[in-house]
Amino acid sequence: MRFSRYFVHTLFEVPKEAETPSHILLLRGSYIYPAAAGIYSLLPLGHRVAEKVKQIIREEMDGIDGLEVTMPVLNPAELWKATKRYYDIGPELFRIRDRRNREFVLAMTHEEIITDIAKKFLRSYRDLPVMLYQIQTKIRDEARPRAGLLRVREFQMKDAYSFHPDFEDLDRYYPRIYNAYLRVFARCGLQAVPIEADTGIMGGTGSHEFMLESPHGEDQFVVCTQCDYRANTEKAVGVKPALNDLPADPPPMERVTTPGVKTIAQLMDFFQTSEDHFLKTVAYEADGELVLAVVRGDFNVSSTKLANHLKAVHLDMASEEALEKEGLHGGFLSPVGLDGKKIRVVVDTSVNENTLYVAGGNDVDLHLKNVLAGRNFHISDPADIAEVRHGDGCAQCGSGTLEIRRGIELGHTFKLGTKYTAPDTMDVTFLDAEGQNRRLVMGCYGIGVERLMASVVESWHDEAGIVWPVTIAPFQVVITTLGKKAEVDATAEELYRELGERWDVLYDDRDESPGVKLKDADLLGIPVRVVVSQRGLKQGTFEVKVRQTGEVHFFRRQELCGAVERILGDLAPVLEGLPWMDENV
Amino acid sequence: MRFSRYFVHTLFEVPKEAETPSHILLLRGSYIYPAAAGIYSLLPLGHRVAEKVKQIIREEMDGIDGLEVTMPVLNPAELWKATKRYYDIGPELFRIRDRRNREFVLAMTHEEIITDIAKKFLRSYRDLPVMLYQIQTKIRDEARPRAGLLRVREFQMKDAYSFHPDFEDLDRYYPRIYNAYLRVFARCGLQAVPIEADTGIMGGTGSHEFMLESPHGEDQFVVCTQCDYRANTEKAVGVKPALNDLPADPPPMERVTTPGVKTIAQLMDFFQTSEDHFLKTVAYEADGELVLAVVRGDFNVSSTKLANHLKAVHLDMASEEALEKEGLHGGFLSPVGLDGKKIRVVVDTSVNENTLYVAGGNDVDLHLKNVLAGRNFHISDPADIAEVRHGDGCAQCGSGTLEIRRGIELGHTFKLGTKYTAPDTMDVTFLDAEGQNRRLVMGCYGIGVERLMASVVESWHDEAGIVWPVTIAPFQVVITTLGKKAEVDATAEELYRELGERWDVLYDDRDESPGVKLKDADLLGIPVRVVVSQRGLKQGTFEVKVRQTGEVHFFRRQELCGAVERILGDLAPVLEGLPWMDENV
Repeated sequence: MRFSRYFVHTLFEVPKEAETPSHILLLRGSYIYPAAAGIYSLLPLGHRVAEKVKQIIREEMDGIDGLEVTMPVLNPAELWKATKRYYDIGPELFRIRDRRNREFVLAMTHEEIITDIAKKFLRSYRDLPVMLYQIQTKIRDEARPRAGLLRVREFQMKDAYSFHPDFEDLDRYYPRIYNAYLRVFARCGLQAVPIEADTGIMGGTGSHEFMLESPHGEDQFVVCTQCDYRANTEKAVGVKPALNDLPADPPPMERVTTPGVKTIAQLMDFFQTSEDHFLKTVAYEADGELVLAVVRGDFNVSSTKLANHLKAVHLDMASEEALEKEGLHGGFLSPVGLDGKKIRVVVDTSVNENTLYVAGGNDVDLHLKNVLAGRNFHISDPADIAEVRHGDGCAQCGSGTLEIRRGIELGHTFKLGTKYTAPDTMDVTFLDAEGQNRRLVMGCYGIGVERLMASVVESWHDEAGIVWPVTIAPFQVVITTLGKKAEVDATAEELYRELGERWDVLYDDRDESPGVKLKDADLLGIPVRVVVSQRGLKQGTFEVKVRQTGEVHFFRRQELCGAVERILGDLAPVLEGLPWMDENV
Repeated sequence: MRFSRYFVHTLFEVPKEAETPSHILLLRGSYIYPAAAGIYSLLPLGHRVAEKVKQIIREEMDGIDGLEVTMPVLNPAELWKATKRYYDIGPELFRIRDRRNREFVLAMTHEEIITDIAKKFLRSYRDLPVMLYQIQTKIRDEARPRAGLLRVREFQMKDAYSFHPDFEDLDRYYPRIYNAYLRVFARCGLQAVPIEADTGIMGGTGSHEFMLESPHGEDQFVVCTQCDYRANTEKAVGVKPALNDLPADPPPMERVTTPGVKTIAQLMDFFQTSEDHFLKTVAYEADGELVLAVVRGDFNVSSTKLANHLKAVHLDMASEEALEKEGLHGGFLSPVGLDGKKIRVVVDTSVNENTLYVAGGNDVDLHLKNVLAGRNFHISDPADIAEVRHGDGCAQCGSGTLEIRRGIELGHTFKLGTKYTAPDTMDVTFLDAEGQNRRLVMGCYGIGVERLMASVVESWHDEAGIVWPVTIAPFQVVITTLGKKAEVDATAEELYRELGERWDVLYDDRDESPGVKLKDADLLGIPVRVVVSQRGLKQGTFEVKVRQTGEVHFFRRQELCGAVERILGDLAPVLEGLPWMDENV
């Protein structure tokens, strides 16, 4: 591609709205252009990268027997009502009516449509297993689109769905998609960490998130310093250091008025005790019902763990009204003295019967001292509902420490099981070899194309610009002419033809200064730059710069093609011995 | 691809909802599956065909210097308000609000977004010309989705936009896209007829529709039997046979009461004269203003021609109320006696001053006889506003006859000019070589992918099923085993490997009866079928059937690969000497 005929309009200023490296560099390189908040056009350069990413995804999906389809953005609302997601998902699901007032949604995922297809076509065990996937436009009204392509409202997603005769078959298939995901990310130059994840609104029986560690990620995940334990913070389980300092003859509970004592620091000072000797009680409304969650003062409630424990679809902080109705007071909640009320109280496993706690008094400016679980209140509903903390012990190996890391979610895999095929959703069965009706078992698996592109830039950039991995670079080679001599142009044309036969070559034929041309090549992030200059021609050598390492080599004409091949080969991601691969394939 | 692992679920019954061949066969072949009226999923077979069609389009667009991009479905309403299309387009444009109540539309075309991109990036004459295109999801709330993929509400469209420094440059580029379109259709096995078209809501200075003649088309177009004149019926101009039978001393106009005389047949009988001696007056509201359109009785008003003449955005039949307000009566409209009223009257060029007409009397049960234009009313606003008729003379060559044909619109090209870059729309200028601000000149060009697929099936099918052109067939070769002998399977496997290296091969390895397997192969429409049977193996030959011609050949093992290559080569569309190509490239 000749630069002069291509669509490149680099910016040297950092766009005001951009903060993360990928956002800044993709805008500066004219890879993308915003149409609205969280909505982007992919310009020719961005489109080229996206196509290469999609091709890698396609090859890996085809490699695990995936069959590509295309499903629509406009989905009839009836299907989403059948699975109840029409009601369960909030404003991120766009709802719309057509000219005849029929309800539709703009699909953010395609379980409903694909399950409808499965119900129509997958009638016999002979049709199974099958994996269908698409790479298609998704629309999702994110509350806070941010960081360029990292969190957007419209994007291309590879979503895949597998159908199985039973859970065992799903379990056999799952490691194949898991490994294919690791390969996709590795081929794009990223090392993703698969972590145990919460299944959230997708439901199901097991799930992994594939996280890229990154300072600009908005997700957190937990890893053990010793063993291979790694999990979403919402799902992670740590060892909660137990307190067992109950005196032999525990003093009775006392009511203490605490006017003006508000913050936890003030309370610690007032009661002369540490944070872990408090009970922290938080009120929620779970599908409309008031629920109190109690954790030890040095922990925080994980709303995801709580929602999972309660099997709640909607979990919100309780409103003032809901508390008032039960005669409760926001700042002074307590599990003690609720006997007359029918309020569900979930107590975290950090709270035990061997410690005296300070708790709220369920009245304004009142606290309770020497609260003893088992004596002053009953732990009827114990559960792990606390967020894991940086430094907690690892529950898996027992010796390591858990670290909390920041990351970008690159992909997500779910064992859905029968969530969408059960009788109360879309009710899908098939005839097994014995002629019996059995329920279809599903998995679903997603990768966001634009987020993956942006994540690569987050990992692969420097001061001067992007440093694309060769596998997804818009062009692998840029030929840059310096000076305006006919001899330079003629040689560059010849090289462009020769290298262009084997690689995607951008030929910078512009009549611009060397500074502008070299800066543009760095900003765009083309892996290999070949300079054709008059000085070089005189010396009979060509300067070849490797964008990633900054190394500069000089080659003679006849060595050039072989040298470029060798350099590109050395830059290719290594796929042997990838970490985290599941051996059970 | 092994049939047993692929997603094929053919139906032998004709689906109730389907009427046209493409709808029936694409459903029966499990190429597509409906999600709602006019909304389809492309199943693996359909997806394969769509990808091949898209690849052909891509190659032709790249061949005329097109650069591929991806633009979003969600478009901010502001841009559509700037071009006024937010107001001008009816309910086919989906309008939606996000969670912050900001307005968006679901794009059915992308002039707004691309012009916004042009405004940002195409600042200098050095950036021009440039052609950007995408193949992307379009959403349009069609009033009457029909005929499977022929008229849908969501589809993939290749939409291309070219930007030029002036009209001359656009005129130079236009034949390249025009020819590329003819090549796209020819490569898909179709001969499209380019016709002059109305620019409609797209606006602009020139336009072609590429029509496929088809009994199931919902568009009509006009062709001359003698010359190369061909046009959209809404745009076509024919010779209107003139009447010149005015008596030397024309009698005065008479008022005739006509109670109970209603239909045109009754009127002809009553007045003892022919249809062409009547004036037909039709009332419209053009952007809210009452307009009367007058044509000779043997013509009909073309609302498109009328709207274009009036430069009206909204043209509707006049309401009873609007007529009553002016004291007019629906069944008795007339251009005569309107002097006191300020009503615009457009008179078609079929009406002349050399004929005595019968006209309405602008009162109930009243007609006027011996109406003479120029004497009884003045033709102040003459225009061609009549629909052309089958059999009218050709205005271009003067000797041919116009025929009206039914067709499917495969593509549409527009010289938009400055419609979207003008000051009252998006106001886009660039700096020319002299440093002067000049207005960007545009063209836009669209092809619907799914409609093209369906049109191919409309043209290429028989009683037994689809007959795909080799270029877009999901598989070029199907290997069908008959009988269950190990020897048959082993040979088929070997052939599958060998042929599969060169072509897309479907290997029907199912344990089904020969009848089912052969019928499926025909229904799916795979161009070449190779049968592996025990009898064939004994005789040392393989039966090869050509789907399109029905020819059956027998080849020996060592001849087979070469024979398949020859057959596929013979089936390939011929691109030399395509009709209608523009030589000015």
